Amino acid sequence: MSLAEIKNSIRNIPDYPQKGVQFKDITTTMKNPTLFCELIDLMAAHFAVRKIDYVVGIDARGFIFGGALAYKLGCGFVPVRKPGKLPADTIAEEYALEYGTNKLEIHKDALNKGDNVIIVDDLIAVGGTAEAAAKLVKRLGANIESFAFAIELTSLGGRSKLSDLAEVFSIIQF
Amino acid sequence: MSLAEIKNSIRNIPDYPQKGVQFKDITTTMKNPTLFCELIDLMAAHFAVRKIDYVVGIDARGFIFGGALAYKLGCGFVPVRKPGKLPADTIAEEYALEYGTNKLEIHKDALNKGDNVIIVDDLIAVGGTAEAAAKLVKRLGANIESFAFAIELTSLGGRSKLSDLAEVFSIIQF
Repeated sequence: MSLAEIKNSIRNIPDYPQKGVQFKDITTTMKNPTLFCELIDLMAAHFAVRKIDYVVGIDARGFIFGGALAYKLGCGFVPVRKPGKLPADTIAEEYALEYGTNKLEIHKDALNKGDNVIIVDDLIAVGGTAEAAAKLVKRLGANIESFAFAIELTSLGGRSKLSDLAEVFSIIQF
Repeated sequence: MSLAEIKNSIRNIPDYPQKGVQFKDITTTMKNPTLFCELIDLMAAHFAVRKIDYVVGIDARGFIFGGALAYKLGCGFVPVRKPGKLPADTIAEEYALEYGTNKLEIHKDALNKGDNVIIVDDLIAVGGTAEAAAKLVKRLGANIESFAFAIELTSLGGRSKLSDLAEVFSIIQF
């Protein structure tokens, strides 16, 4: 097993979701039991000696990696979701898309002051989603220990948007 | 730890998403590291001696439990998603909601003939979503070894809709 094998297992989908975009499809990696488990193990190893209270997973692919990572680290799992999906009291953050805006929500009582969290998603592109998740976490008074992504699209500069907030950790870079 | 502690940790939200419904909010269980990990361990223990190739997780809360379960069992993870979310070629199944219909999709190449899969979601109510996921799995020629849910709402009869297709396994019943 190697990072190269994980990288090669990621499928490129040209012109998805729109013309000119090279979409990185990680379902082909998750399907492979060895590579999926290795990816989670690599994430977990990076955090093994740090005190992590919660993995905050971003709706929806961040739930797959975040759920597995929380289990492996023995942490709690906290979802950050698209609007209207969380049943109890929430706070919300809007973030910009190429055209228009989107919104993320977290339960008001999901985190407490001083909790140490990792924010997890499958991929970082421009970083808007992760930044909105970070604002939610900080509004609840928790500390962001790190952002963790399976894939980082380095040319889109998302890292620079997040690096003032916390460490940015990714397994595979394109 | 006990099943009673897991059950007590599930938060009841009255009148969500609509009047008269008692919504079972499992985010309060997932937040608790001991209970979240125990829930995954209980699911995994049930399948430990069986040959499982893939965990098929249903969008979106099924991704949290499915991702962790796939990791624990050393299986591949395959997502079943809401329309337009999977980037490669898909097949779709429609299913009835109380008002109108909804649709689920799976990648055409996600499973092969004879693969043994578990279909995982957080909760079974009337069973329509899990049934649609099962139809997708069967259309790809795979075998459904079991359905696995964290929560089963027994009075809604979802089990009887699925039990002709495969075993129905749930951790907590209401």
